[in-house]
Amino acid sequence: MQDYTPPIDDYRFLLEEVLEFDRAMSDLGKDVDASLAAAVLEEGGKFCAERLHPLNREGDEHGSALVDGDVVVPPGFAEAYRAFSDAGWPALAADPAHGGQGLPFILQLWLDEMLSASNLSFGLFPGLTRGATEAIAAHASDDLKARYLPPLVSGEWTGAMALTESGAGTDLALLKTKAADRADGSFAITGQKIFISSGDHDMAPNIIHLVLARLTDAPPGVKGISLFLVPKFLPDGARNAMSVGALEKKMGIHAQPTCVMNYDEATGWLVGEPHRGLAAMFTMMNAERLMVGIQGLGIAGAAYQQAAAYAKDRLQGRSSDGARGPVPIIDHADVRRMLLKTRAFVEAGRALAGWTALQLDRAHGHMDASERAKADARVALLTPVIKAAFTDFGFESAVEAQQVFGGHGYIREWGMEQFVRDARIAQIYEGTNGVQAMDLVGRKLPLSGGAVVEELFALIEAEIGSAADLFVAKRTGEALASLRQVTADLRGADADAAGAAAVDYLRLFALVTFGWMWTRMARVATSDSPLHRSKRMVAEFYARRMLPQARGLAESIAAGEASLMALPADAF
Amino acid sequence: MQDYTPPIDDYRFLLEEVLEFDRAMSDLGKDVDASLAAAVLEEGGKFCAERLHPLNREGDEHGSALVDGDVVVPPGFAEAYRAFSDAGWPALAADPAHGGQGLPFILQLWLDEMLSASNLSFGLFPGLTRGATEAIAAHASDDLKARYLPPLVSGEWTGAMALTESGAGTDLALLKTKAADRADGSFAITGQKIFISSGDHDMAPNIIHLVLARLTDAPPGVKGISLFLVPKFLPDGARNAMSVGALEKKMGIHAQPTCVMNYDEATGWLVGEPHRGLAAMFTMMNAERLMVGIQGLGIAGAAYQQAAAYAKDRLQGRSSDGARGPVPIIDHADVRRMLLKTRAFVEAGRALAGWTALQLDRAHGHMDASERAKADARVALLTPVIKAAFTDFGFESAVEAQQVFGGHGYIREWGMEQFVRDARIAQIYEGTNGVQAMDLVGRKLPLSGGAVVEELFALIEAEIGSAADLFVAKRTGEALASLRQVTADLRGADADAAGAAAVDYLRLFALVTFGWMWTRMARVATSDSPLHRSKRMVAEFYARRMLPQARGLAESIAAGEASLMALPADAF
Repeated sequence: MQDYTPPIDDYRFLLEEVLEFDRAMSDLGKDVDASLAAAVLEEGGKFCAERLHPLNREGDEHGSALVDGDVVVPPGFAEAYRAFSDAGWPALAADPAHGGQGLPFILQLWLDEMLSASNLSFGLFPGLTRGATEAIAAHASDDLKARYLPPLVSGEWTGAMALTESGAGTDLALLKTKAADRADGSFAITGQKIFISSGDHDMAPNIIHLVLARLTDAPPGVKGISLFLVPKFLPDGARNAMSVGALEKKMGIHAQPTCVMNYDEATGWLVGEPHRGLAAMFTMMNAERLMVGIQGLGIAGAAYQQAAAYAKDRLQGRSSDGARGPVPIIDHADVRRMLLKTRAFVEAGRALAGWTALQLDRAHGHMDASERAKADARVALLTPVIKAAFTDFGFESAVEAQQVFGGHGYIREWGMEQFVRDARIAQIYEGTNGVQAMDLVGRKLPLSGGAVVEELFALIEAEIGSAADLFVAKRTGEALASLRQVTADLRGADADAAGAAAVDYLRLFALVTFGWMWTRMARVATSDSPLHRSKRMVAEFYARRMLPQARGLAESIAAGEASLMALPADAF
Repeated sequence: MQDYTPPIDDYRFLLEEVLEFDRAMSDLGKDVDASLAAAVLEEGGKFCAERLHPLNREGDEHGSALVDGDVVVPPGFAEAYRAFSDAGWPALAADPAHGGQGLPFILQLWLDEMLSASNLSFGLFPGLTRGATEAIAAHASDDLKARYLPPLVSGEWTGAMALTESGAGTDLALLKTKAADRADGSFAITGQKIFISSGDHDMAPNIIHLVLARLTDAPPGVKGISLFLVPKFLPDGARNAMSVGALEKKMGIHAQPTCVMNYDEATGWLVGEPHRGLAAMFTMMNAERLMVGIQGLGIAGAAYQQAAAYAKDRLQGRSSDGARGPVPIIDHADVRRMLLKTRAFVEAGRALAGWTALQLDRAHGHMDASERAKADARVALLTPVIKAAFTDFGFESAVEAQQVFGGHGYIREWGMEQFVRDARIAQIYEGTNGVQAMDLVGRKLPLSGGAVVEELFALIEAEIGSAADLFVAKRTGEALASLRQVTADLRGADADAAGAAAVDYLRLFALVTFGWMWTRMARVATSDSPLHRSKRMVAEFYARRMLPQARGLAESIAAGEASLMALPADAF
C-alpha cells in the first residue's frame, strides 16, 4: 500500500479560488484566512498520513477485542490517540468557552475527510466525542457542562451515542430502556443498547455515553424519550453499573469497537427537558450526518490514490494502436473511466462539503439573524444529500478502485477490499441512506413551504448563468430543469409516493449539486496550471459521462409508486 | 439465517411456459422433458438447501487453512463433497462417453445457480473440475482422456486452472512458466502461478491442474503458450513436484482455497497442440464464464430470499396513512424498491441463462450444422453479457439486500455481508468485467460482420412485436432502438473508443435482454395464479423503474472517448 497524500493542493484551490474563504470569514468577523486554514489542514494531514494511515491495515487484521469484559483496541491506537489529543486536534472547531479553538467548521470537516481516508475506525472516536460534546453543550445543565465539557473537548475523555436497541433502530418510538428517578437528582438507567460505536475501549480514562431512555411516567412513542448522560466512571471515581454485553463481529471497521451495552441501574443525569430527548439527540445527529457523508468521501479519495498509483505502475496489454506493449493500464480507456468516476465525485464532493461547512459557520456566527436562518436552512436541506450521496458514491468508488487492481484487489494485503468493507457502514449508520432520502423528500423539501429548496436551485441557476459557455454548465442546467420538475411533482406526495421516489430523487439532487460545483470550479480554473487544466478536464468528463444519468432518474421518479406497491407482501 | 428455498417453481414456469423446453429437447432428439428436468432440479436443490447452505456461514468463519504445506478445508466440506459426488452430481451434463449422464446444459447451469446461492466456495470445486474436464475432453490425447476423464467426470478427483502469474493476469502474453521437453513424452513444468482456485485441498485423492506454460523453443507473446496437464499425484502414485506456496487471505469465499502454486520441474503432459494453449484454454473459459455469471445470479437470489423474509418480519415505522404501527418494513415503498430491483434482475437473469443454455445444447447437439453454428454464435455473443452483467447486478443486489437489514446487515452473524464479500469476486475473476465488456464490443459485435448481433436484435424485436400491448414491450423496444443506434456507432471503433464505451454498452445490452425476457414472461403469464400475477407486476416494475436507465447509458456511450483520454497519465 502506498502512502496517503493529503489533498492539500485541492483544499487550497477551494479555499482561495472557489469558496471565497477569506470573505466568508471576514463576514463572520473571524480572524482566519486561507493561508492559515491551509497550514492547519497541512498539519492535520501530516498526522493522518504519518500516524494513522500506517495503523489502518493492522487495525483491520487485529481488530478490537473483548478481554475480561473490557475492550482492548489494536496495537498503536492508544498511543496515536494520545498524540492526537495532545496536539489539540479534538478541540479544533469547538467553542472557546469550553476550551475549543473556535476554528471554522470547514476545517473540522476536511480534517474528518483525511481522518476517514487514513483510518476510519480511528476517526470515529473523536467524531463521536464531538457529537456528544455538542449535545451536552446545547442541552445540558451548567453543572454537567462544567464537569464534562472540558475533558471531552480536549479529547482526554471520549463520547458515545447510545440510541439503538435490538427492536428499535430507525423507529426509536419502540425503544424500551428505562430511567428511574432517584432522590438525588440522578436517574437509574436500565436496558440494553446495540451498535454502540466507541462504547468501550482502553484509550481514555473515561467514556461518556449519551443514552436515550424512557422516564417512568413517560408517554409512549417518540414523545416519551429523554436523553441521559451516563459516564463509565462516576465523579467519585467508582465504575458505573454499565458493561459491554458483546463486541460485534462486523464486515469492516474492525478496529472500531461496536458494542452491545448493558445498563443495570447505571447512574445518569438528564440532558435537556424530560421527554425531549429526540430533539437533543438531533443536535448531535445533524453534525454527525455531515461527518458520515465525509467518511464516504474520505475513503473514496484514499482508494482513488491507491488505484491511480497502481494503474500507472501495472503493465498489461498494448497501446490502443497496438504498437507498444505491455503498457501501464492507465493507458486503457476503461481504467480511466473507473478512476475518473471516482475523481469526479471526490472533487465535487469536497467542494460541496466545503460550501456547506461555510454555511454552517454562517448559521452559527453571522451577526444577522435572517442570514443565520437562511444558512441554517441550506445546511438542513443538504445534510441528507451529503450523508447519503457521499456514502453511496463513496462505496461505489471504493468498489471501482478495487476493480482497477483486478485479482489483487480481492486480496487483503493490498488494502483495497478493506476500503470497500469499511465504506459500506457509512451507508447504513446514522440513519440508513433510504431514511436520509425520506428525510430529504418528506421533511426538507417542504421547509418554508418549499422556499429553501427553491433558493438553492436559484443559486445553482445563477452559477450556471455566469458560466453559460461551459458544457458542464449547460448539462447541469438540463439536469436542474429535470430536478425542478420532479420536485414540483413531489409537492404534497403521500408517504408511498415520497418513499417510492426518495432514493432516486436524492441521487438526482446530488448529481445536480455536483454539476453545480464542477461548473463553479471549471469557471475559475482558467489558467494553464496542471491543477486548473485537470479541473476543466474532469468537469468535462463529469458532464459527458456521469450527468446523463439524470434523465433516467427523473423518468424513474416520475413513474410513481404504483409498480412498487402492487405486489402483495406475501408474494415477496 | 433462514433456510434456502430452491426456486423450483420458477424453473418449472420457465421450462414449461417460457422456454418451450420439451420442443427444444425433441429438436435435439433428447429424451428429457420438463417434468424430468424439474425433478432433477428439485433433487439438486434439496442437496444445496440441506447439505451446502448450512455449511456456508461456518465455512466463511473457519476458512480453508494451510497446515504443514497442505490445504485443509473447513469442517463438513469433505463429507459434503463425497455425498455430492456419490449422488452423481458432477456427471450431470457430462458426455456419456466419459461416464457422464448427458443431461442438457440448462440443468447444469441452474444447478450452478443453486450451488452458488447456497455455498459459492463449495460450488467452485465441481465448477473448476468441469472446466478442466472440458478442456481435456476437447484437446487431450486419447491416453490422457482415458486416464483422467473418468475420475474427473465422476468427481472422484477435482480440477484446477493455472493461468495467472503475478506479472500476467489479463495479459497472458507476459507469462513466464517454462515447460522443458523430457525424453519420455512428458514435460518438466517450472514456475509460479497465483490465484489458483481449488489449487489444493483434502477433499479428493487427486487434483488435476491445467497449467499454461511456454515450451523451451516457444515464440514470445500469446502464440508461444501451451497447455499442460499436471496432476498432484502421478500415475505411479508419487507426489508431483508441485506445492502450495501460500494460501491467499481474501475479502470473501474464505472456504475456497485460492493458492499460490509452485511447480518445480513438475511432470506434465501437453494438452492439444504446442503453442496453441490459449485456444485450448478458451474451451474452458467460455463455459466457466457462463458459470461465473450464474454465481452472481445465485447469490442475488439467495440474498433476496433472506431480505424478503426479514422485511416481512421486522417491525419499524408506521403505515403510509399513519394509522398503524409498527408495521413490517415490507410495507415501506423504499424497501420494496430494493427488493424489486433484485428480483427483477434475478428472474430475468434466470430466464436468459436458461435460454442461453438451451442454445449451448443446440450448438452441441443439433443435427443441422448451420443451426449449430447459429446457436454457437448466440452463446458467444451472450457469454460476456452474462458473465459481467449478472455479476455486476449480482453484487449490487447483494448490497441492496444487505441494506434491507439496516445495521444488522453489517454484522457477520446475519450472513448478509458474506453475500456481498463473496459476490464481489465474480466481477473480477475469469476476466474482469471490464475485459468482458471489451470482449463484447471488440470481438463479439463484429462476429459475422455484425450479423450475429443483428440476428439477436431481430429475435428481441419479434418478441416485442408479439406482445405490443404490454408496457414492458414498449419500453424494451425503445431501449432496443437506443442500443441499435450505439451499436451502429461503435462499428469500426478503435481501441480507445471501444474501451470508453464498453462497460456502459454491456450494461445497456443487458437491460435490453432483461426487458426481452420480461416481455416474454409477461406475455405468457396471463392467468390469475399468484406466480403469473407476480410476473406481470415485476415486469411492470422493471419497465417503469429500471429500464429508464437505458437512455442515459446510450447518451454516455455516444459521448465518446475524448473526455476519458484527455487527462495526461501523470495528472491522475
